[in-house]
Amino acid sequence: MAETIGFIGLGIMGLPMAINLIGAGHRLVVHARRAESMAPLVQAGAKACDSPAAVAWQSTVIFTMVADTPDVEQVMLGERGVIDGIQAGSIAVDMSTISPSATRHVSARLSERGAEMLDAPVSGGDIGAINGTLSIMVGGNETAFERVLPLFEVLGRNIVHVGPSGAGQVCKACNQIVVAQTIAAVGEALLLAEASGVDGAKVRESLLGGFAGSRILEVHGQRMLDANYAPGFKASLHQKDMRIVQEAAQELGIALPGASQVAQYLNALVGQGFGELDSASVYRMQRQLNGRSD
Amino acid sequence: MAETIGFIGLGIMGLPMAINLIGAGHRLVVHARRAESMAPLVQAGAKACDSPAAVAWQSTVIFTMVADTPDVEQVMLGERGVIDGIQAGSIAVDMSTISPSATRHVSARLSERGAEMLDAPVSGGDIGAINGTLSIMVGGNETAFERVLPLFEVLGRNIVHVGPSGAGQVCKACNQIVVAQTIAAVGEALLLAEASGVDGAKVRESLLGGFAGSRILEVHGQRMLDANYAPGFKASLHQKDMRIVQEAAQELGIALPGASQVAQYLNALVGQGFGELDSASVYRMQRQLNGRSD
Repeated sequence: MAETIGFIGLGIMGLPMAINLIGAGHRLVVHARRAESMAPLVQAGAKACDSPAAVAWQSTVIFTMVADTPDVEQVMLGERGVIDGIQAGSIAVDMSTISPSATRHVSARLSERGAEMLDAPVSGGDIGAINGTLSIMVGGNETAFERVLPLFEVLGRNIVHVGPSGAGQVCKACNQIVVAQTIAAVGEALLLAEASGVDGAKVRESLLGGFAGSRILEVHGQRMLDANYAPGFKASLHQKDMRIVQEAAQELGIALPGASQVAQYLNALVGQGFGELDSASVYRMQRQLNGRSD
Repeated sequence: MAETIGFIGLGIMGLPMAINLIGAGHRLVVHARRAESMAPLVQAGAKACDSPAAVAWQSTVIFTMVADTPDVEQVMLGERGVIDGIQAGSIAVDMSTISPSATRHVSARLSERGAEMLDAPVSGGDIGAINGTLSIMVGGNETAFERVLPLFEVLGRNIVHVGPSGAGQVCKACNQIVVAQTIAAVGEALLLAEASGVDGAKVRESLLGGFAGSRILEVHGQRMLDANYAPGFKASLHQKDMRIVQEAAQELGIALPGASQVAQYLNALVGQGFGELDSASVYRMQRQLNGRSD
Protein backbone atom coordinates (compact mmCIF):
# COMPACT_ATOMS: atom_id res chain seq x y z
CA MET A 1 0.00 0.00 0.00
CA ALA A 2 1.42 3.37 -0.97
CA GLU A 3 -1.40 5.83 -0.61
CA THR A 4 -0.40 9.44 -0.13
CA ILE A 5 -1.17 10.37 3.45
CA GLY A 6 -1.50 13.89 4.81
CA PHE A 7 -0.35 14.79 8.30
CA ILE A 8 -1.03 18.15 9.95
CA GLY A 9 0.37 18.98 13.39
CA LEU A 10 3.85 17.69 14.13
CA GLY A 11 4.25 18.20 17.87
CA ILE A 12 5.28 15.76 20.59
CA MET A 13 2.55 13.33 19.44
CA GLY A 14 2.19 14.08 15.72
CA LEU A 15 5.88 13.88 14.86
CA PRO A 16 6.50 10.28 15.96
CA MET A 17 3.13 9.18 14.53
CA ALA A 18 4.04 10.67 11.13
CA ILE A 19 7.48 9.02 11.32
CA ASN A 20 5.81 5.66 11.95
CA LEU A 21 3.59 6.10 8.88
CA ILE A 22 6.67 6.80 6.75
CA GLY A 23 8.36 3.78 8.31
CA ALA A 24 5.39 1.66 7.18
CA GLY A 25 6.07 2.67 3.57
CA HIS A 26 3.62 5.53 3.04
CA ARG A 27 4.26 8.74 1.10
CA LEU A 28 3.56 11.67 3.40
CA VAL A 29 2.65 15.29 2.75
CA VAL A 30 2.82 17.36 5.90
CA HIS A 31 2.07 20.75 7.34
CA ALA A 32 2.88 22.42 10.65
CA ARG A 33 2.39 26.02 11.73
CA ARG A 34 6.10 26.36 12.43
CA ALA A 35 8.19 25.42 9.39
CA GLU A 36 11.03 24.04 11.56
CA SER A 37 8.65 21.35 12.90
CA MET A 38 8.50 19.92 9.39
CA ALA A 39 12.28 19.58 8.97
CA PRO A 40 12.66 16.07 10.51
CA LEU A 41 9.80 14.78 8.35
CA VAL A 42 11.24 16.31 5.18
CA GLN A 43 14.54 14.64 6.02
CA ALA A 44 12.66 11.35 6.35
CA GLY A 45 11.21 11.83 2.86
CA ALA A 46 7.94 13.71 3.45
CA LYS A 47 6.85 16.65 1.35
CA ALA A 48 6.24 19.94 3.20
CA CYS A 49 3.16 22.01 2.34
CA ASP A 50 2.43 25.61 3.25
CA SER A 51 -1.23 25.08 4.23
CA PRO A 52 -3.72 22.44 5.41
CA ALA A 53 -5.55 22.95 2.09
CA ALA A 54 -2.43 21.97 0.14
CA VAL A 55 -2.01 18.82 2.27
CA ALA A 56 -5.65 17.87 1.77
CA TRP A 57 -5.49 18.42 -1.99
CA GLN A 58 -2.60 15.98 -2.39
CA SER A 59 -3.77 13.14 -0.10
CA THR A 60 -6.65 10.71 0.32
CA VAL A 61 -6.38 10.35 4.09
CA ILE A 62 -5.49 13.46 6.11
CA PHE A 63 -4.49 13.11 9.76
CA THR A 64 -4.64 16.07 12.14
CA MET A 65 -2.98 16.08 15.55
CA VAL A 66 -3.19 19.51 17.16
CA ALA A 67 -3.76 20.87 20.66
CA ASP A 68 -7.37 21.88 21.19
CA THR A 69 -10.83 22.48 19.75
CA PRO A 70 -10.09 25.92 18.17
CA ASP A 71 -6.93 24.52 16.53
CA VAL A 72 -8.92 21.74 14.84
CA GLU A 73 -11.58 24.24 13.73
CA GLN A 74 -8.86 26.49 12.32
CA VAL A 75 -6.99 23.68 10.52
CA MET A 76 -10.16 22.12 9.11
CA LEU A 77 -12.43 25.11 8.41
CA GLY A 78 -10.18 28.21 8.64
CA GLU A 79 -8.38 30.09 5.90
CA ARG A 80 -6.68 27.64 3.48
CA GLY A 81 -8.02 24.89 5.69
CA VAL A 82 -8.51 21.21 4.93
CA ILE A 83 -12.03 21.99 3.69
CA ASP A 84 -10.58 24.13 0.88
CA GLY A 85 -8.45 21.29 -0.49
CA ILE A 86 -10.14 18.01 0.42
CA GLN A 87 -11.47 15.90 -2.44
CA ALA A 88 -14.77 14.00 -2.49
CA GLY A 89 -14.14 10.50 -1.10
CA SER A 90 -11.14 11.53 1.00
CA ILE A 91 -11.13 11.06 4.77
CA ALA A 92 -10.00 13.56 7.40
CA VAL A 93 -8.92 11.78 10.60
CA ASP A 94 -8.66 14.05 13.62
CA MET A 95 -6.57 12.42 16.35
CA SER A 96 -6.55 15.49 18.62
CA THR A 97 -8.62 15.45 21.83
CA ILE A 98 -11.38 18.03 21.38
CA SER A 99 -15.06 18.70 21.99
CA PRO A 100 -17.46 16.00 20.72
CA SER A 101 -20.01 18.58 19.57
CA ALA A 102 -17.39 20.64 17.71
CA THR A 103 -16.27 17.38 16.07
CA ARG A 104 -19.79 16.71 14.76
CA HIS A 105 -19.94 20.25 13.40
CA VAL A 106 -16.64 19.93 11.51
CA SER A 107 -17.66 16.49 10.22
CA ALA A 108 -20.94 17.88 8.87
CA ARG A 109 -19.08 20.68 7.10
CA LEU A 110 -16.64 18.25 5.46
CA SER A 111 -19.46 15.97 4.36
CA GLU A 112 -20.87 18.91 2.35
CA ARG A 113 -17.75 18.47 0.18
CA GLY A 114 -18.34 14.73 -0.16
CA ALA A 115 -15.52 13.95 2.29
CA GLU A 116 -15.65 11.83 5.43
CA MET A 117 -14.30 12.60 8.88
CA LEU A 118 -13.27 10.24 11.65
CA ASP A 119 -12.59 11.44 15.18
CA ALA A 120 -9.85 9.23 16.56
CA PRO A 121 -8.37 10.57 19.80
CA VAL A 122 -5.71 8.47 21.45
CA SER A 123 -4.37 7.59 24.84
CA GLY A 124 -0.90 6.33 25.64
CA GLY A 125 1.12 9.56 25.47
CA ASP A 126 4.30 10.27 23.57
CA ILE A 127 5.72 6.85 24.48
CA GLY A 128 2.70 5.20 22.87
CA ALA A 129 3.10 7.48 19.83
CA ILE A 130 6.78 6.59 19.46
CA ASN A 131 6.24 2.86 19.93
CA GLY A 132 3.06 2.67 17.85
CA THR A 133 1.12 1.35 20.83
CA LEU A 134 -1.55 4.02 21.24
CA SER A 135 -5.12 3.23 22.23
CA ILE A 136 -7.33 4.72 19.49
CA MET A 137 -11.03 5.50 20.07
CA VAL A 138 -12.76 6.05 16.78
CA GLY A 139 -16.02 7.79 15.89
CA GLY A 140 -17.53 8.03 12.42
CA ASN A 141 -18.74 6.03 9.48
CA GLU A 142 -17.97 2.28 9.50
CA THR A 143 -16.74 2.20 5.88
CA ALA A 144 -14.33 5.06 6.53
CA PHE A 145 -13.14 3.28 9.68
CA GLU A 146 -12.44 0.06 7.76
CA ARG A 147 -10.52 2.00 5.13
CA VAL A 148 -8.30 3.79 7.68
CA LEU A 149 -7.86 0.76 9.97
CA PRO A 150 -4.56 -0.41 8.36
CA LEU A 151 -3.13 3.05 9.11
CA PHE A 152 -4.46 3.00 12.68
CA GLU A 153 -2.72 -0.35 13.07
CA VAL A 154 0.58 1.36 12.29
CA LEU A 155 -0.08 3.90 15.06
CA GLY A 156 -1.70 1.88 17.80
CA ARG A 157 -2.74 -1.42 19.25
CA ASN A 158 -6.07 -1.10 21.05
CA ILE A 159 -8.30 0.28 18.28
CA VAL A 160 -12.05 0.42 18.89
CA HIS A 161 -14.71 1.78 16.56
CA VAL A 162 -16.93 3.26 19.26
CA GLY A 163 -19.80 4.68 17.18
CA PRO A 164 -20.81 7.52 14.86
CA SER A 165 -19.16 10.93 14.53
CA GLY A 166 -18.13 12.32 17.93
CA ALA A 167 -18.21 8.91 19.65
CA GLY A 168 -14.42 8.70 19.68
CA GLN A 169 -14.21 12.07 21.46
CA VAL A 170 -16.94 11.04 23.92
CA CYS A 171 -14.97 7.86 24.64
CA LYS A 172 -11.79 9.86 25.21
CA ALA A 173 -13.70 12.16 27.59
CA CYS A 174 -14.89 9.04 29.45
CA ASN A 175 -11.29 7.83 29.59
CA GLN A 176 -10.09 11.10 31.10
CA ILE A 177 -12.92 11.10 33.67
CA VAL A 178 -11.89 7.65 34.86
CA VAL A 179 -8.15 8.33 34.81
CA ALA A 180 -8.46 11.63 36.70
CA GLN A 181 -10.75 10.28 39.39
CA THR A 182 -8.73 7.11 39.84
CA ILE A 183 -5.62 9.25 40.34
CA ALA A 184 -7.49 11.27 42.97
CA ALA A 185 -8.78 8.10 44.64
CA VAL A 186 -5.30 6.56 44.85
CA GLY A 187 -4.00 9.90 46.16
CA GLU A 188 -6.57 9.95 48.97
CA ALA A 189 -5.70 6.37 49.88
CA LEU A 190 -1.98 7.17 50.09
CA LEU A 191 -2.73 10.28 52.13
CA LEU A 192 -4.79 8.31 54.63
CA ALA A 193 -1.99 5.74 54.86
CA GLU A 194 0.68 8.37 55.47
CA ALA A 195 -1.41 10.29 57.99
CA SER A 196 -1.95 6.98 59.81
CA GLY A 197 1.77 6.15 59.83
CA VAL A 198 1.30 3.24 57.43
CA ASP A 199 3.71 2.44 54.57
CA GLY A 200 2.05 3.51 51.32
CA ALA A 201 4.15 1.05 49.32
CA LYS A 202 2.68 -1.84 51.31
CA VAL A 203 -0.82 -0.45 50.79
CA ARG A 204 -0.22 -0.21 47.04
CA GLU A 205 1.12 -3.77 47.02
CA SER A 206 -1.87 -5.12 48.93
CA LEU A 207 -4.47 -3.21 46.90
CA LEU A 208 -3.00 -4.19 43.52
CA GLY A 209 -4.02 -7.82 44.06
CA GLY A 210 -7.73 -7.12 44.63
CA PHE A 211 -10.71 -5.10 43.48
CA ALA A 212 -8.91 -1.79 44.00
CA GLY A 213 -6.34 -2.85 41.40
CA SER A 214 -5.85 -0.63 38.33
CA ARG A 215 -3.21 0.58 35.89
CA ILE A 216 -3.37 3.94 37.67
CA LEU A 217 -2.64 2.37 41.08
CA GLU A 218 0.22 0.45 39.51
CA VAL A 219 1.88 3.25 37.52
CA HIS A 220 0.70 6.54 39.05
CA GLY A 221 0.59 5.08 42.56
CA GLN A 222 4.30 4.37 42.22
CA ARG A 223 4.91 7.87 40.82
CA MET A 224 3.18 9.33 43.89
CA LEU A 225 5.21 7.20 46.29
CA ASP A 226 8.41 8.32 44.53
CA ALA A 227 7.21 11.95 44.13
CA ASN A 228 8.33 11.43 40.51
CA TYR A 229 6.16 13.62 38.31
CA ALA A 230 8.16 13.54 35.08
CA PRO A 231 5.48 13.22 32.37
CA GLY A 232 3.90 10.91 31.27
CA PHE A 233 0.83 12.93 30.53
CA LYS A 234 1.01 16.61 31.39
CA ALA A 235 -1.34 18.11 33.96
CA SER A 236 -2.00 21.07 31.61
CA LEU A 237 -3.35 18.65 28.98
CA HIS A 238 -5.42 16.77 31.52
CA GLN A 239 -6.84 20.12 32.68
CA LYS A 240 -7.78 20.89 29.07
CA ASP A 241 -9.42 17.47 28.70
CA MET A 242 -11.43 17.99 31.89
CA ARG A 243 -12.57 21.34 30.47
CA ILE A 244 -13.89 19.40 27.47
CA VAL A 245 -15.63 16.97 29.85
CA GLN A 246 -17.25 19.82 31.75
CA GLU A 247 -18.31 21.62 28.55
CA ALA A 248 -19.89 18.39 27.32
CA ALA A 249 -21.67 17.89 30.66
CA GLN A 250 -23.01 21.44 30.47
CA GLU A 251 -24.17 21.05 26.85
CA LEU A 252 -25.87 17.75 27.71
CA GLY A 253 -27.24 18.97 31.03
CA ILE A 254 -25.76 16.21 33.17
CA ALA A 255 -24.17 16.37 36.61
CA LEU A 256 -20.72 14.80 36.96
CA PRO A 257 -19.68 15.90 40.45
CA GLY A 258 -16.65 13.61 40.66
CA ALA A 259 -15.16 14.88 37.42
CA SER A 260 -15.86 18.42 38.50
CA GLN A 261 -14.08 17.92 41.83
CA VAL A 262 -10.90 16.47 40.37
CA ALA A 263 -10.87 19.25 37.76
CA GLN A 264 -10.42 21.66 40.67
CA TYR A 265 -7.14 19.99 41.64
CA LEU A 266 -5.95 20.30 38.04
CA ASN A 267 -6.91 23.99 38.03
CA ALA A 268 -4.95 24.59 41.23
CA LEU A 269 -2.01 22.59 39.91
CA VAL A 270 -1.76 24.46 36.62
CA GLY A 271 -2.47 27.77 38.34
CA GLN A 272 0.55 27.24 40.55
CA GLY A 273 2.83 26.59 37.59
CA PHE A 274 2.89 22.79 37.70
CA GLY A 275 1.21 22.23 34.32
CA GLU A 276 4.30 20.54 32.89
CA LEU A 277 4.26 17.82 35.57
CA ASP A 278 2.55 14.49 35.05
CA SER A 279 -1.11 14.59 36.05
CA ALA A 280 -0.33 12.16 38.89
CA SER A 281 0.80 15.37 40.61
CA VAL A 282 -2.87 15.91 41.51
CA TYR A 283 -1.48 14.15 44.59
CA ARG A 284 0.69 17.22 45.25
CA MET A 285 -2.46 19.33 45.55
CA GLN A 286 -4.13 16.76 47.80
CA ARG A 287 -1.03 16.85 50.00
CA GLN A 288 -0.88 20.63 49.89
CA LEU A 289 -4.54 20.84 50.98
CA ASN A 290 -3.49 18.71 53.94
CA GLY A 291 -0.44 20.77 54.82
CA ARG A 292 2.08 18.28 53.50
CA SER A 293 4.66 19.62 51.09
CA ASP A 294 5.95 17.47 48.20
CA MET B 1 -0.50 -28.86 62.34
CA ALA B 2 -3.48 -29.45 64.57
CA GLU B 3 -3.64 -26.41 66.79
CA THR B 4 -7.02 -25.65 68.33
CA ILE B 5 -8.41 -22.61 66.61
CA GLY B 6 -11.18 -20.39 67.89
CA PHE B 7 -13.68 -18.76 65.54
CA ILE B 8 -16.22 -16.14 66.65
CA GLY B 9 -18.83 -14.78 64.24
CA LEU B 10 -20.27 -17.23 61.74
CA GLY B 11 -22.10 -15.08 59.25
CA ILE B 12 -21.89 -14.95 55.47
CA MET B 13 -18.09 -14.50 55.69
CA GLY B 14 -17.17 -16.27 58.93
CA LEU B 15 -19.02 -19.51 58.23
CA PRO B 16 -17.18 -20.48 55.01
CA MET B 17 -13.85 -19.32 56.49
CA ALA B 18 -14.36 -21.56 59.54
CA ILE B 19 -15.35 -24.44 57.26
CA ASN B 20 -12.13 -23.98 55.29
CA LEU B 21 -10.07 -24.12 58.49
CA ILE B 22 -11.76 -27.41 59.47
CA GLY B 23 -11.13 -28.65 55.92
CA ALA B 24 -7.42 -27.94 56.41
CA GLY B 25 -7.38 -30.29 59.40
CA HIS B 26 -7.73 -27.91 62.34
CA ARG B 27 -9.77 -28.47 65.49
CA LEU B 28 -12.22 -25.59 65.87
CA VAL B 29 -14.03 -24.16 68.86
CA VAL B 30 -16.67 -21.64 67.81
CA HIS B 31 -19.12 -19.09 69.10
CA ALA B 32 -21.91 -17.08 67.50
CA ARG B 33 -24.55 -14.88 69.07
CA ARG B 34 -27.31 -17.00 67.55
CA ALA B 35 -26.91 -20.67 68.48
CA GLU B 36 -28.37 -21.84 65.13
CA SER B 37 -25.43 -20.22 63.31
CA MET B 38 -23.15 -22.73 65.01
CA ALA B 39 -25.09 -25.82 63.84
CA PRO B 40 -23.33 -26.32 60.48
CA LEU B 41 -19.93 -26.02 62.17
CA VAL B 42 -20.86 -28.47 64.91
CA GLN B 43 -21.98 -30.89 62.20
CA ALA B 44 -18.57 -30.43 60.55
CA GLY B 45 -16.88 -31.36 63.84
CA ALA B 46 -16.41 -28.03 65.63
CA LYS B 47 -17.14 -27.55 69.32
CA ALA B 48 -19.74 -24.89 70.19
CA CYS B 49 -19.05 -22.52 73.09
CA ASP B 50 -21.49 -20.24 74.89
CA SER B 51 -19.18 -17.19 75.07
CA PRO B 52 -16.15 -15.56 73.43
CA ALA B 53 -14.27 -16.11 76.72
CA ALA B 54 -14.86 -19.88 76.50
CA VAL B 55 -13.56 -19.93 72.91
CA ALA B 56 -10.48 -17.94 73.88
CA TRP B 57 -9.72 -20.17 76.85
CA GLN B 58 -9.59 -23.29 74.68
CA SER B 59 -7.62 -21.99 71.71
CA THR B 60 -4.24 -20.47 70.86
CA VAL B 61 -5.39 -18.48 67.84
CA ILE B 62 -8.84 -16.85 68.01
CA PHE B 63 -10.41 -15.45 64.84
CA THR B 64 -13.23 -12.91 64.99
CA MET B 65 -15.39 -12.00 62.00
CA VAL B 66 -18.23 -9.70 63.01
CA ALA B 67 -20.02 -6.70 61.52
CA ASP B 68 -18.71 -3.46 62.95
CA THR B 69 -16.52 -1.66 65.50
CA PRO B 70 -18.93 -2.01 68.48
CA ASP B 71 -19.31 -5.74 67.77
CA VAL B 72 -15.56 -6.29 67.93
CA GLU B 73 -15.33 -4.22 71.13
CA GLN B 74 -18.16 -6.29 72.64
CA VAL B 75 -16.69 -9.67 71.60
CA MET B 76 -13.17 -8.77 72.68
CA LEU B 77 -13.67 -6.58 75.78
CA GLY B 78 -17.35 -7.03 76.75
CA GLU B 79 -18.91 -9.37 79.30
CA ARG B 80 -17.40 -12.88 78.97
CA GLY B 81 -15.34 -11.47 76.15
CA VAL B 82 -12.15 -12.82 74.59
CA ILE B 83 -10.13 -10.81 77.11
CA ASP B 84 -11.63 -12.85 79.96
CA GLY B 85 -10.43 -16.16 78.49
CA ILE B 86 -7.36 -15.47 76.40
CA GLN B 87 -4.08 -16.96 77.57
CA ALA B 88 -0.70 -15.26 77.53
CA GLY B 89 0.97 -16.05 74.22
CA SER B 90 -2.29 -16.56 72.35
CA ILE B 91 -3.21 -14.42 69.35
CA ALA B 92 -6.56 -12.79 68.62
CA VAL B 93 -7.02 -12.19 64.88
CA ASP B 94 -9.80 -9.79 64.01
CA MET B 95 -10.82 -10.15 60.36
CA SER B 96 -13.77 -7.74 60.59
CA THR B 97 -13.54 -4.32 58.96
CA ILE B 98 -13.55 -1.76 61.76
CA SER B 99 -11.96 1.49 62.95
CA PRO B 100 -8.13 1.52 62.99
CA SER B 101 -8.03 3.51 66.24
CA ALA B 102 -10.50 1.18 67.99
CA THR B 103 -8.32 -1.71 66.78
CA ARG B 104 -5.25 -0.21 68.46
CA HIS B 105 -7.22 0.24 71.68
CA VAL B 106 -8.41 -3.39 71.74
CA SER B 107 -4.90 -4.58 70.90
CA ALA B 108 -3.44 -2.59 73.79
CA ARG B 109 -5.99 -4.08 76.18
CA LEU B 110 -5.22 -7.65 75.06
CA SER B 111 -1.49 -7.05 75.38
CA GLU B 112 -2.03 -6.31 79.09
CA ARG B 113 -2.95 -10.01 79.32
CA GLY B 114 0.21 -11.05 77.50
CA ALA B 115 -1.77 -11.81 74.34
CA GLU B 116 -1.20 -10.50 70.83
CA MET B 117 -3.72 -9.12 68.38
CA LEU B 118 -3.59 -8.95 64.60
CA ASP B 119 -6.03 -6.87 62.58
CA ALA B 120 -6.59 -8.73 59.33
CA PRO B 121 -9.53 -7.36 57.33
CA VAL B 122 -10.21 -8.95 53.98
CA SER B 123 -11.52 -8.14 50.57
CA GLY B 124 -13.00 -10.57 48.09
CA GLY B 125 -16.51 -11.06 49.51
CA ASP B 126 -18.35 -14.27 50.28
CA ILE B 127 -17.09 -15.86 47.04
CA GLY B 128 -13.51 -15.23 48.20
CA ALA B 129 -14.37 -16.60 51.65
CA ILE B 130 -15.87 -19.79 50.16
CA ASN B 131 -13.02 -20.34 47.70
CA GLY B 132 -10.25 -19.40 50.14
CA THR B 133 -9.09 -16.62 47.82
CA LEU B 134 -9.51 -13.56 50.05
CA SER B 135 -7.07 -10.66 50.02
CA ILE B 136 -5.88 -10.23 53.61
CA MET B 137 -4.36 -6.98 54.90
CA VAL B 138 -2.59 -7.56 58.18
CA GLY B 139 -1.55 -5.20 60.94
CA GLY B 140 0.35 -6.18 64.11
CA ASN B 141 3.52 -7.74 65.39
CA GLU B 142 5.73 -9.53 62.80
CA THR B 143 6.21 -12.66 64.96
CA ALA B 144 2.48 -13.04 65.46
CA PHE B 145 1.97 -12.56 61.71
CA GLU B 146 4.48 -15.31 60.89
CA ARG B 147 2.79 -17.65 63.34
CA VAL B 148 -0.69 -17.09 61.87
CA LEU B 149 0.46 -17.01 58.23
CA PRO B 150 -0.21 -20.73 57.56
CA LEU B 151 -3.81 -20.17 58.68
CA PHE B 152 -4.14 -17.05 56.53
CA GLU B 153 -2.94 -19.17 53.62
CA VAL B 154 -5.93 -21.45 54.14
CA LEU B 155 -8.27 -18.44 53.92
CA GLY B 156 -6.73 -16.26 51.25
CA ARG B 157 -4.20 -15.73 48.54
CA ASN B 158 -2.99 -12.13 48.51
CA ILE B 159 -1.69 -11.76 52.07
CA VAL B 160 0.30 -8.65 52.97
CA HIS B 161 1.74 -7.73 56.36
CA VAL B 162 1.15 -3.98 56.05
CA GLY B 163 2.59 -2.74 59.34
CA PRO B 164 1.93 -2.48 63.10
CA SER B 165 -1.41 -2.73 64.89
CA GLY B 166 -4.17 -0.93 62.98
CA ALA B 167 -2.25 -0.94 59.68
CA GLY B 168 -4.44 -3.72 58.28
CA GLN B 169 -7.56 -1.67 58.99
CA VAL B 170 -5.96 1.45 57.49
CA CYS B 171 -5.13 -0.56 54.37
CA LYS B 172 -8.71 -1.81 54.14
CA ALA B 173 -9.97 1.77 54.48
CA CYS B 174 -7.63 2.72 51.62
CA ASN B 175 -9.01 -0.16 49.59
CA GLN B 176 -12.59 0.98 50.12
CA ILE B 177 -11.70 4.59 49.21
CA VAL B 178 -10.25 3.44 45.90
CA VAL B 179 -13.02 0.96 45.12
CA ALA B 180 -15.83 3.44 45.90
CA GLN B 181 -14.33 6.29 43.89
CA THR B 182 -13.45 4.06 40.95
CA ILE B 183 -17.06 2.85 40.87
CA ALA B 184 -18.24 6.48 40.85
CA ALA B 185 -15.73 7.38 38.13
CA VAL B 186 -16.83 4.51 35.89
CA GLY B 187 -20.46 5.48 36.56
CA GLU B 188 -19.84 9.06 35.42
CA ALA B 189 -18.10 7.82 32.29
CA LEU B 190 -21.03 5.54 31.40
CA LEU B 191 -23.48 8.36 32.08
CA LEU B 192 -21.63 10.73 29.77
CA ALA B 193 -21.57 8.01 27.10
CA GLU B 194 -25.30 7.34 27.40
CA ALA B 195 -26.24 11.03 27.45
CA SER B 196 -24.12 11.43 24.30
CA GLY B 197 -25.83 8.51 22.55
CA VAL B 198 -22.67 6.40 22.65
CA ASP B 199 -22.63 2.66 23.41
CA GLY B 200 -21.30 2.19 26.95
CA ALA B 201 -20.17 -1.36 26.18
CA LYS B 202 -17.86 -0.02 23.46
CA VAL B 203 -16.53 2.61 25.86
CA ARG B 204 -15.82 -0.04 28.48
CA GLU B 205 -14.08 -2.21 25.88
CA SER B 206 -11.91 0.66 24.68
CA LEU B 207 -11.02 1.92 28.16
CA LEU B 208 -10.10 -1.55 29.49
CA GLY B 209 -7.06 -1.68 27.23
CA GLY B 210 -5.47 1.56 28.47
CA PHE B 211 -4.71 3.66 31.51
CA ALA B 212 -8.36 3.78 32.56
CA GLY B 213 -8.31 0.00 32.94
CA SER B 214 -9.19 -1.50 36.33
CA ARG B 215 -10.87 -4.49 37.94
CA ILE B 216 -13.77 -2.16 38.79
CA LEU B 217 -14.22 -1.11 35.15
CA GLU B 218 -14.08 -4.76 34.16
CA VAL B 219 -16.45 -6.24 36.75
CA HIS B 220 -18.58 -3.36 38.06
CA GLY B 221 -18.63 -1.62 34.67
CA GLN B 222 -20.30 -4.73 33.26
CA ARG B 223 -22.71 -4.84 36.21
CA MET B 224 -23.71 -1.23 35.48
CA LEU B 225 -24.23 -1.93 31.78
CA ASP B 226 -26.41 -4.92 32.67
CA ALA B 227 -28.14 -3.11 35.58
CA ASN B 228 -27.28 -6.29 37.47
CA TYR B 229 -26.78 -5.38 41.11
CA ALA B 230 -26.89 -8.80 42.72
CA PRO B 231 -24.12 -8.66 45.35
CA GLY B 232 -21.09 -9.01 45.25
CA PHE B 233 -20.44 -6.57 48.04
CA LYS B 234 -23.46 -4.95 49.60
CA ALA B 235 -23.94 -1.20 49.46
CA SER B 236 -24.87 -1.17 53.18
CA LEU B 237 -21.44 -2.63 54.03
CA HIS B 238 -19.66 -0.20 51.75
CA GLN B 239 -21.58 2.62 53.43
CA LYS B 240 -20.36 1.34 56.80
CA ASP B 241 -16.79 1.16 55.52
CA MET B 242 -16.97 4.72 54.20
CA ARG B 243 -18.19 5.78 57.67
CA ILE B 244 -15.00 4.24 59.06
CA VAL B 245 -12.97 6.14 56.42
CA GLN B 246 -14.65 9.42 57.35
CA GLU B 247 -14.23 8.79 61.08
CA ALA B 248 -10.54 8.11 60.52
CA ALA B 249 -10.19 11.27 58.40
CA GLN B 250 -11.84 13.28 61.15
CA GLU B 251 -9.66 11.77 63.89
CA LEU B 252 -6.53 12.42 61.82
CA GLY B 253 -7.68 15.85 60.64
CA ILE B 254 -7.30 15.18 56.92
CA ALA B 255 -9.54 16.22 54.03
CA LEU B 256 -10.64 13.43 51.67
CA PRO B 257 -13.22 15.20 49.50
CA GLY B 258 -13.52 12.40 46.94
CA ALA B 259 -14.27 9.76 49.56
CA SER B 260 -16.74 12.11 51.18
CA GLN B 261 -18.57 12.71 47.92
CA VAL B 262 -19.01 9.06 47.02
CA ALA B 263 -20.16 8.34 50.59
CA GLN B 264 -23.12 10.63 49.84
CA TYR B 265 -24.26 8.32 47.03
CA LEU B 266 -24.02 5.35 49.40
CA ASN B 267 -26.07 7.25 51.99
CA ALA B 268 -28.76 8.01 49.42
CA LEU B 269 -28.70 4.43 48.17
CA VAL B 270 -29.10 2.85 51.59
CA GLY B 271 -31.60 5.52 52.61
CA GLN B 272 -33.83 4.54 49.71
CA GLY B 273 -33.79 0.88 50.69
CA PHE B 274 -31.13 -0.37 48.27
CA GLY B 275 -28.57 -1.42 50.89
CA GLU B 276 -28.78 -5.08 49.87
CA LEU B 277 -27.70 -4.31 46.30
CA ASP B 278 -24.09 -4.50 45.18
CA SER B 279 -22.26 -1.24 45.74
CA ALA B 280 -21.92 -0.85 41.95
CA SER B 281 -25.48 0.46 42.31
CA VAL B 282 -23.92 3.81 43.22
CA TYR B 283 -24.52 4.12 39.46
CA ARG B 284 -28.28 3.99 40.15
CA MET B 285 -27.95 7.13 42.27
CA GLN B 286 -25.83 8.86 39.63
CA ARG B 287 -28.51 8.03 37.08
CA GLN B 288 -31.29 9.11 39.43
CA LEU B 289 -29.55 12.47 39.99
CA ASN B 290 -29.64 12.83 36.23
CA GLY B 291 -33.29 11.87 35.84
CA ARG B 292 -32.63 8.42 34.45
CA SER B 293 -34.37 5.54 36.16
CA ASP B 294 -32.70 2.13 36.51
